[in-house]
Amino acid sequence: MINFASDNASGVHPRVLEALGRANSGFARAYGDDPFTQEADDAFRRIFGDNIAVFYVVNGTGANVLALKSLTRSYHAVVCAQMAHINVDETGAPEAQAGCKLLPLVSANGKITPEQVRPLLAAKGVVHHNQPKGISITQATEFGEVYTPQEVRALADLAHENGMFLHMDGARLANAAASLGGDVNAFTRDAGVDVLSFGGTKNGMMFGEAVVFFRAGERRDAVADFPYLRKQNLQLFSKMRYASCQFAEMLRDGLWLENAAHANAMATRLAEGLAALPHVRLANRVQANEVFACMQPGHIAALQEHFYFYVWDEAAHLVRLVCSFDTTEEEVDAFLNMLGALA
Amino acid sequence: MINFASDNASGVHPRVLEALGRANSGFARAYGDDPFTQEADDAFRRIFGDNIAVFYVVNGTGANVLALKSLTRSYHAVVCAQMAHINVDETGAPEAQAGCKLLPLVSANGKITPEQVRPLLAAKGVVHHNQPKGISITQATEFGEVYTPQEVRALADLAHENGMFLHMDGARLANAAASLGGDVNAFTRDAGVDVLSFGGTKNGMMFGEAVVFFRAGERRDAVADFPYLRKQNLQLFSKMRYASCQFAEMLRDGLWLENAAHANAMATRLAEGLAALPHVRLANRVQANEVFACMQPGHIAALQEHFYFYVWDEAAHLVRLVCSFDTTEEEVDAFLNMLGALA
Amino acid sequence: MINFASDNASGVHPRVLEALGRANSGFARAYGDDPFTQEADDAFRRIFGDNIAVFYVVNGTGANVLALKSLTRSYHAVVCAQMAHINVDETGAPEAQAGCKLLPLVSANGKITPEQVRPLLAAKGVVHHNQPKGISITQATEFGEVYTPQEVRALADLAHENGMFLHMDGARLANAAASLGGDVNAFTRDAGVDVLSFGGTKNGMMFGEAVVFFRAGERRDAVADFPYLRKQNLQLFSKMRYASCQFAEMLRDGLWLENAAHANAMATRLAEGLAALPHVRLANRVQANEVFACMQPGHIAALQEHFYFYVWDEAAHLVRLVCSFDTTEEEVDAFLNMLGALA
Amino acid sequence: MINFASDNASGVHPRVLEALGRANSGFARAYGDDPFTQEADDAFRRIFGDNIAVFYVVNGTGANVLALKSLTRSYHAVVCAQMAHINVDETGAPEAQAGCKLLPLVSANGKITPEQVRPLLAAKGVVHHNQPKGISITQATEFGEVYTPQEVRALADLAHENGMFLHMDGARLANAAASLGGDVNAFTRDAGVDVLSFGGTKNGMMFGEAVVFFRAGERRDAVADFPYLRKQNLQLFSKMRYASCQFAEMLRDGLWLENAAHANAMATRLAEGLAALPHVRLANRVQANEVFACMQPGHIAALQEHFYFYVWDEAAHLVRLVCSFDTTEEEVDAFLNMLGALA
Repeated sequence: MINFASDNASGVHPRVLEALGRANSGFARAYGDDPFTQEADDAFRRIFGDNIAVFYVVNGTGANVLALKSLTRSYHAVVCAQMAHINVDETGAPEAQAGCKLLPLVSANGKITPEQVRPLLAAKGVVHHNQPKGISITQATEFGEVYTPQEVRALADLAHENGMFLHMDGARLANAAASLGGDVNAFTRDAGVDVLSFGGTKNGMMFGEAVVFFRAGERRDAVADFPYLRKQNLQLFSKMRYASCQFAEMLRDGLWLENAAHANAMATRLAEGLAALPHVRLANRVQANEVFACMQPGHIAALQEHFYFYVWDEAAHLVRLVCSFDTTEEEVDAFLNMLGALA
Repeated sequence: MINFASDNASGVHPRVLEALGRANSGFARAYGDDPFTQEADDAFRRIFGDNIAVFYVVNGTGANVLALKSLTRSYHAVVCAQMAHINVDETGAPEAQAGCKLLPLVSANGKITPEQVRPLLAAKGVVHHNQPKGISITQATEFGEVYTPQEVRALADLAHENGMFLHMDGARLANAAASLGGDVNAFTRDAGVDVLSFGGTKNGMMFGEAVVFFRAGERRDAVADFPYLRKQNLQLFSKMRYASCQFAEMLRDGLWLENAAHANAMATRLAEGLAALPHVRLANRVQANEVFACMQPGHIAALQEHFYFYVWDEAAHLVRLVCSFDTTEEEVDAFLNMLGALA
Repeated sequence: MINFASDNASGVHPRVLEALGRANSGFARAYGDDPFTQEADDAFRRIFGDNIAVFYVVNGTGANVLALKSLTRSYHAVVCAQMAHINVDETGAPEAQAGCKLLPLVSANGKITPEQVRPLLAAKGVVHHNQPKGISITQATEFGEVYTPQEVRALADLAHENGMFLHMDGARLANAAASLGGDVNAFTRDAGVDVLSFGGTKNGMMFGEAVVFFRAGERRDAVADFPYLRKQNLQLFSKMRYASCQFAEMLRDGLWLENAAHANAMATRLAEGLAALPHVRLANRVQANEVFACMQPGHIAALQEHFYFYVWDEAAHLVRLVCSFDTTEEEVDAFLNMLGALA
Repeated sequence: MINFASDNASGVHPRVLEALGRANSGFARAYGDDPFTQEADDAFRRIFGDNIAVFYVVNGTGANVLALKSLTRSYHAVVCAQMAHINVDETGAPEAQAGCKLLPLVSANGKITPEQVRPLLAAKGVVHHNQPKGISITQATEFGEVYTPQEVRALADLAHENGMFLHMDGARLANAAASLGGDVNAFTRDAGVDVLSFGGTKNGMMFGEAVVFFRAGERRDAVADFPYLRKQNLQLFSKMRYASCQFAEMLRDGLWLENAAHANAMATRLAEGLAALPHVRLANRVQANEVFACMQPGHIAALQEHFYFYVWDEAAHLVRLVCSFDTTEEEVDAFLNMLGALA
């Protein structure tokens, strides 16, 4: 079987595994008071500048929940896309853990716009309605597309004009960064994002995500609360060095962008091959590492005997194909060849 | 610096690190549908028998919270020792996440007794009081002592006679098992424990704990709820194989008991050495891997320049010294020698 | 000013006020162990039969939240209309208090159908999705329309076939009952409703709602949990007699249906009058005590100087007009006359 | 039967009932935008000055929970007496609803002291411990004693020096005020209390409590959050006028103090009578409207056939006798006479 199901089904990049081995030397103070965590912190500052606060957590749901929880009260609401991971793939953790309500907006490609958000602000000041406090966007979106810096900025401006914050779920941030030319600040810090879930696991790490607050000096309360919320919400590693050392390695010399660029390139190769086949229709603009395509039901069934992937929408015969840091050209071509032979 | 501060400050056992490397071969389905998790499940069944349900989680607080949450409603209460980790070292996660109230009992050595629990049952049926639903004990206790199978059984009997469950926080379960001769069933399954937090991290793993339900056939609701609660409470690893492969390795041929027996032996060596010194008073029965001792303030300060450990009670000059799988005889003797020279 | 804004802005029916005075004689045991509560319980059993459990609570949001909480776990989901009171007018209390997630369905008139619910059941068994456990409908709906017994039954059947329950938010249950000929069992108990929020406040009481479980013998757990959840969720009156005596009076000889029938008749009179006017378009089928109509903006502004009512949708110039037990024919005619004169 | 069980078992003062009747004239805007609520607000300002924020809620548990919730985050802790109503009589609502953890202190008479609180502050800054953020005291205490203004001030000072707030549960505030000479500001606002649960129900109202923030200008966040939290936590009356008109009547000309002074006088009469009897031992200083006394078991049983009261501690044969605004001298003397005859 060949994996196009998820970047979560991939393994760990060899350099990350080596870094874990190097971190395993003697004792280190628990909970983050160790040189590996210091090194990771420094690496994040090299990328995002000094006015940040960065916290390492266990998983993507944890990163999103804690980012939202630290900036909301229970009567707040956070606007997001209907298909957002926080809305449909976290078993209600944002509501149950962060406490706030999600206000989902229908979106074809996973992006939301200021025009969609604006009408929801009518709830402001009415005691019977959750008060909109945040906007959460996913970059790259759950449908594999990428917000431009301008699109992010427009949402950030709307948020800030209304006393709200902008959260970016960056489970596949590296793929977006690679797609947009590598300048991660252009569509995060500089575009007005307030808090970022910086993904690691899907990009070749064993586990671990980071929550990055921008303009940390202006949100001292959330930053001060975060360590306690992280512990209480079960996202504090005791042997923290094994989380932070992975980030240090990924960020040391650009491995995080290399991995993502490779995954993106494989997705593009796959998409170009699919576009040339009859009976196949690409459903998204392939801007990151995910390809969505409609195929004939019989072809899907035949492919699934050799390839591991998900049918995204049964009725539409729409499948999702995810490429990863360890996807090879041979794997992509094997998929295309088999589908070509079926057609 | 030499570490006697915590088994969390130790590294990862070399065999565990090797197992992580072996698990890093190709893709594996995410979230536990993989052969490594199957292997760990089988290993737990070899130890505890077939009528169990086992779930892997991220950390000890997560294991405790989910064990309690799966068996309680928000109006329930769980009885525990005042010094219990769930009461004082989890930043309120049991109340905030599981929702139930803790009813703490004063205890000198971390153990609680049926005589202490019984008066709390007067709350039963009174709508203004949280309803006692569980008893939670820590094995080995936070003060390094060990419940005998008979002591556990007495608490389990009281619980079951009153429609309650018995939870065991086994963050240092291996140390207790080694201390009690290696028969872990004698003081868990066979003594009436209903749900167990089976510790891994403190015993030489990188991360990962397991929640084990005994007599799983009788508590189908909690077992059926658990996977959803695990996801919602941020304790589900996506790349699960890297958690489960560690347990598989630890349980394969008894490494978990070997590591614990070594840590216990080092603690005993340390305690025997301390007992022979003037101006030192052992404060607990050293039955696992933790030594509590009162020392002269000046000696504590001098030792802390070379050894990393915690003062447990400032007023009483009481320190906690924790030995680990990687503590060496030389490290123990260095501590004893320096203290001997100070005295 | 004349009130068409809300039945919450009306006062208390004189007979209810007299009942409160009669209840004020000497002492009565607190929290419901009193003869007035016994009398109300008996009245509910006369209407709904013996196999019920009934609990008095403070307000409608409390009734809904507790009905849902008693039948769900935090990872569950409840399907409802997008415009449902629980979704848009309770400041997130269902999510924050009951813990479950709401899955809203778009609906023009506030009703939802089995066809809309069925696709959501695909989430069943997938650990990343909230598990659909309940369906909640509002009777009469927030748009003033009424489910037929057949429509309720179809939703109940779907729910029960899938291990789910059907909740009815009956804040305006009496209006629906009066509209459907007075047989309240036909569209509640006999149509498969599992738990009912039975409204009192909007129908002429000072405060107080009831939660009624049908087939109580089959849901012993929820019924046994309810008193504790009611206390914990701040919905337990200490001087309970003053809540229950109102229900006893309302149910004694049909006052609850009389009040509602009057309000409905006033709404019908209003709707018929509006239908005869130019520049006015009725937006709903007036089946209870609420009239929704589109009017010219200038007319709305002029009317609001003399009448108290809400604009439901600014863009559509859609207003909501609510009649109550104390609305008079003269008040209705005054509204119609003024609008007629404006046109 | 004669009631000495609880002031919750008493009825409603006739003037309060009349006020409810007067409020029942025509319509009034819901949720507090009405003249009765304005009148109550004005009455509170006459007593406590202009720099307050006052909110009406349903019940005492609701007042306490919302006072704490508005000033805490989920990782905070609130220090209180072990016997505090919030700790033992609210079915865990503070933990479940406000989210924070309670840190109970043993107290013989329900009072706590700065000396007891201070050691708990060692938790500050340690991420594994709930962070002490508030102190909650009950006035009069659950054991019927009264904090002096100096005692309150000492706790307030400690709180403020450590970035914490002082909450007063005043379910029986009027009794304390009457006991201390009527100057309620002396032991609340002027003694440094930050937020007060101002009781109404136990003092002759039908329902309703008020939450009063002092120095409201300094805690704009909590005051701004409160209305949303009140709604979300099920404590918002729709027909608010019927809650606020009771407060307006109680505060108009001192009825609240009259009622309490009468209850206190009856308790004093009862205590003095008991002190003169053999085989009876008064257990508390009777400073408000509650008498605690140890009696012979046989006498207790005989009395309970004619009087309704609670045994507070079975083992100690300790009973609680509560006097109310409607307790009469004849009722007190009947109790004393019967007990005298038994002895």
